[in-house]
Amino acid sequence: MVRWEPGTPERLQAAALELFATRGYEQTTAAEIAQSVGLTERTFFRHFADKREVLFHGQQLFVAGFLEGARATPGDAAPLEVVRAALGSAAGFFGDERRPHSRRRQTVIDANPALQERELHKMVGLADALRDLLRERGVAEPAATLAARVGTLVFEVSFATWIAEGEERSIDTIQAVVFAELVALVQ
Amino acid sequence: MVRWEPGTPERLQAAALELFATRGYEQTTAAEIAQSVGLTERTFFRHFADKREVLFHGQQLFVAGFLEGARATPGDAAPLEVVRAALGSAAGFFGDERRPHSRRRQTVIDANPALQERELHKMVGLADALRDLLRERGVAEPAATLAARVGTLVFEVSFATWIAEGEERSIDTIQAVVFAELVALVQ
Repeated sequence: MVRWEPGTPERLQAAALELFATRGYEQTTAAEIAQSVGLTERTFFRHFADKREVLFHGQQLFVAGFLEGARATPGDAAPLEVVRAALGSAAGFFGDERRPHSRRRQTVIDANPALQERELHKMVGLADALRDLLRERGVAEPAATLAARVGTLVFEVSFATWIAEGEERSIDTIQAVVFAELVALVQ
Repeated sequence: MVRWEPGTPERLQAAALELFATRGYEQTTAAEIAQSVGLTERTFFRHFADKREVLFHGQQLFVAGFLEGARATPGDAAPLEVVRAALGSAAGFFGDERRPHSRRRQTVIDANPALQERELHKMVGLADALRDLLRERGVAEPAATLAARVGTLVFEVSFATWIAEGEERSIDTIQAVVFAELVALVQ
């Protein structure tokens, strides 16, 4: 009988990050990750398709939050207001208590081209979803694509700033600064 | 003795596009591409590392052109002026006579995830190079990254518009429209 184990994905994720960071991503197997927290390889594969996916756990929640913020705006909101709302909503996933985890995760990703690839696709998928949402609201092209891509650009730059060594500002504050920089730049 | 054959890469590229479009990318080998224009597989591999690379021939010229346009601006030009110059210079590579080729190439790329991957990396590399150039000129972050990414965003959206079925405007004209849309959106 398969028992429901609350928090198992999170435990596996924390263990994986620890091993990836100390031993290296390539040198760590799914079995070793599972064993380090007293679980079996089989349990690992019940939660994740492969060891790469363990780093992207929670991604659907982030994407859902981003799009939920966008959807919560009035139907006639300007495209950039929709984007701002999406960013504000996504910021909820990056509280200060999460910063050490995000930093460690990024170090692992930066060291591995296959993981960078996956991360890149994540952002492309996010921009496409936001673009589709804007199109459904009647925003014409190229405005829908431009607004969506501006949104993921501001997020990417803000996130990279947020996890930089020594950075203490909240992601909300950083996003506001980056957005203002973009506006100043384009004017 | 290896003979210098002018235009061989271009002939191989045209042959490859023809075969990729009619027979499918996966179903076409380097040997078949070479044979279809009376060349050997060995000749093919003298010019390209693999059949994927045949689609990216000329890429260095495009990147060089893009960056050359950026470098030709005065050292104290505003970041967005540098970006505009890069786009203007890159447009030189996409004359109207090239549009059918670019359309056919895009069809092949859209049908193949590995090629989309390669294309995505090309744009990331281009944005990074432009960002580095802006940093060297003393542009601070996040402005350098934002300006560079705005540049590749405008290029990507403009290029996709330029190769759309029935589109007849020049890429220069389209880039001006897309840039204006972005400015209007962000203000």
